[in-house]
Amino acid sequence: MPDIQPARYDVIAIGNAVVDVIASCEEELIDELQLNRGGMTLIDEARADELYEAMPPAREISGGSAANTLAGLATLGLQCAFIGQVADDQLGKVFRHDMRATGIDFDTPAREGDPATGRVLIFVTPDGERTMNTFLGAGQYLPAAALDEELIASGAILYLEGYLWDPEEPRRAMRRAIEVARDAGRKIAFTASESFVIDRHGDDFRAMIDDGVIDILFVNETELATLTGEDDFEAGLAQVAGKVPVLVATRSEKGAVAIAHGERAEVAAVPVIKVIDTTGAGDQFAAGFLSGYARGEPLTRCLKRGAIAASEVIAHYGPRPEADMVKLMEERL
Amino acid sequence: MPDIQPARYDVIAIGNAVVDVIASCEEELIDELQLNRGGMTLIDEARADELYEAMPPAREISGGSAANTLAGLATLGLQCAFIGQVADDQLGKVFRHDMRATGIDFDTPAREGDPATGRVLIFVTPDGERTMNTFLGAGQYLPAAALDEELIASGAILYLEGYLWDPEEPRRAMRRAIEVARDAGRKIAFTASESFVIDRHGDDFRAMIDDGVIDILFVNETELATLTGEDDFEAGLAQVAGKVPVLVATRSEKGAVAIAHGERAEVAAVPVIKVIDTTGAGDQFAAGFLSGYARGEPLTRCLKRGAIAASEVIAHYGPRPEADMVKLMEERL
Repeated sequence: MPDIQPARYDVIAIGNAVVDVIASCEEELIDELQLNRGGMTLIDEARADELYEAMPPAREISGGSAANTLAGLATLGLQCAFIGQVADDQLGKVFRHDMRATGIDFDTPAREGDPATGRVLIFVTPDGERTMNTFLGAGQYLPAAALDEELIASGAILYLEGYLWDPEEPRRAMRRAIEVARDAGRKIAFTASESFVIDRHGDDFRAMIDDGVIDILFVNETELATLTGEDDFEAGLAQVAGKVPVLVATRSEKGAVAIAHGERAEVAAVPVIKVIDTTGAGDQFAAGFLSGYARGEPLTRCLKRGAIAASEVIAHYGPRPEADMVKLMEERL
Repeated sequence: MPDIQPARYDVIAIGNAVVDVIASCEEELIDELQLNRGGMTLIDEARADELYEAMPPAREISGGSAANTLAGLATLGLQCAFIGQVADDQLGKVFRHDMRATGIDFDTPAREGDPATGRVLIFVTPDGERTMNTFLGAGQYLPAAALDEELIASGAILYLEGYLWDPEEPRRAMRRAIEVARDAGRKIAFTASESFVIDRHGDDFRAMIDDGVIDILFVNETELATLTGEDDFEAGLAQVAGKVPVLVATRSEKGAVAIAHGERAEVAAVPVIKVIDTTGAGDQFAAGFLSGYARGEPLTRCLKRGAIAASEVIAHYGPRPEADMVKLMEERL
């Protein structure tokens, strides 16, 4: 066990630095463009241009899974820092502004030249479901050299997103970050992000779980099934629960389950009047949960915070909280 | 009277090509940054950077007064084309995309080099009031040479915004466009935009009104007072009504008045559950009104359309309609 220094940050995240381009659309357009309804698909720039051409008028809002979670955590009063790769362009400036304006330290230098800052073309159908198409752009070139290791060592929790495990350079960077954080005695939180990521990198993830590298694992129901090969939710939970100190499994409108050090807790979803846009639901659930966990709150309360945060974000467009979250938690907890 | 050709477009607009950067903020920030609460202030790039630095996290949505009106008109099924100047950058592409995706023809070539595409930093206070700070960027260099005169001659109505009267090049371009449109026997619609514009260019506007150049004039209560020097609303109306065939004067929550060819009509504001962001209220009122007027509907019905369109846009962030406006009109008219 290393000699653990007091943490300067509650959470440090490494993730995609992207701007969401969010448009409402009819169901038919999803079919017409052959999109992966409800999922996240990696696309190249040519496909991004093609889809943008066909997209209804949109709004641009900073996104990125781990970045969204961090925004949620900062809104809830936690000290946060972000590591991610933007290009030196207007969308990169937008992303950086939105992070810093949320109170998050974000100093990874912008990358010169092409490609541009990543963007996610999000088609939101009338049921509120989001279909994401991600051009990673500059984000796929986050180099291990860009990591501020002193910074990483200074955060109580290092939060990583599976989405960024896909491109090679950021994957290497995250592996290095995990070493640095563990050497400093920090906790590793990991969100599996998407089943397709597990399809491609499940062996890595399972090895990390088996080796005890992951302290807090966030999955949704589908991801748990892909990760474990178990279609039955309870069987999936049983397979992973003993291997990670904290397992959080979300099930959309069916609520969520957490198993931590043998203790199990469940929470129902917090109902919303109308689901506008589900983008960021998982990210904000993670933010709510971690905001309680980082402060040592009981497991049920952590889950409740997650459900409240998720209910706020799906009631409006965009993946980050718009409400006064501290007040909302006070009212609803 | 020239030989009038059938119009290919219902409305052609010349206006600012800008992207709105919209953030919610507390009242105190307005004072702290010494903003002109509820108004629109022209700012240079240095001030834009300074204000952006101090701005909470934001969403980017295409804006521009005349462009917003056109978006409203297109949503209501009218054939529209836009003329305006963006730079060859990411925000310029966003603006062009959003116009075209709304069904508006927009072919003014992007301008190379600095400055960037214009942006409006909008601070929205908890009462929904918007405080706009506009860096015109490339927009201020719209040259008369960029006008497609054949296009202008092919629109039944040429719609112009006062905001763009301020920079010299676009003012010259709009004067030329007015000549072209009038020679083709088209109608000129003009929105005064803001009292500060009238402070600076009121003589131009009054001369155009006196000379019978303006067929349809949109003003709000404050602008009417600045334009006429009459603090009394009715006295202001009386001074202008005889000089323009159609006068539309909006009064926010007090509704609106139109006087056309001696006939007077009034409408109450359409109540909304909660005012989120008043940005675009005047623009969408104009869109609603013109959508009826262009189809020869009775004056009261045109006003009602304006009030409905305004009520939709102030119930969400951003200056352009998000609802199915054709359906909304059917339900509420």
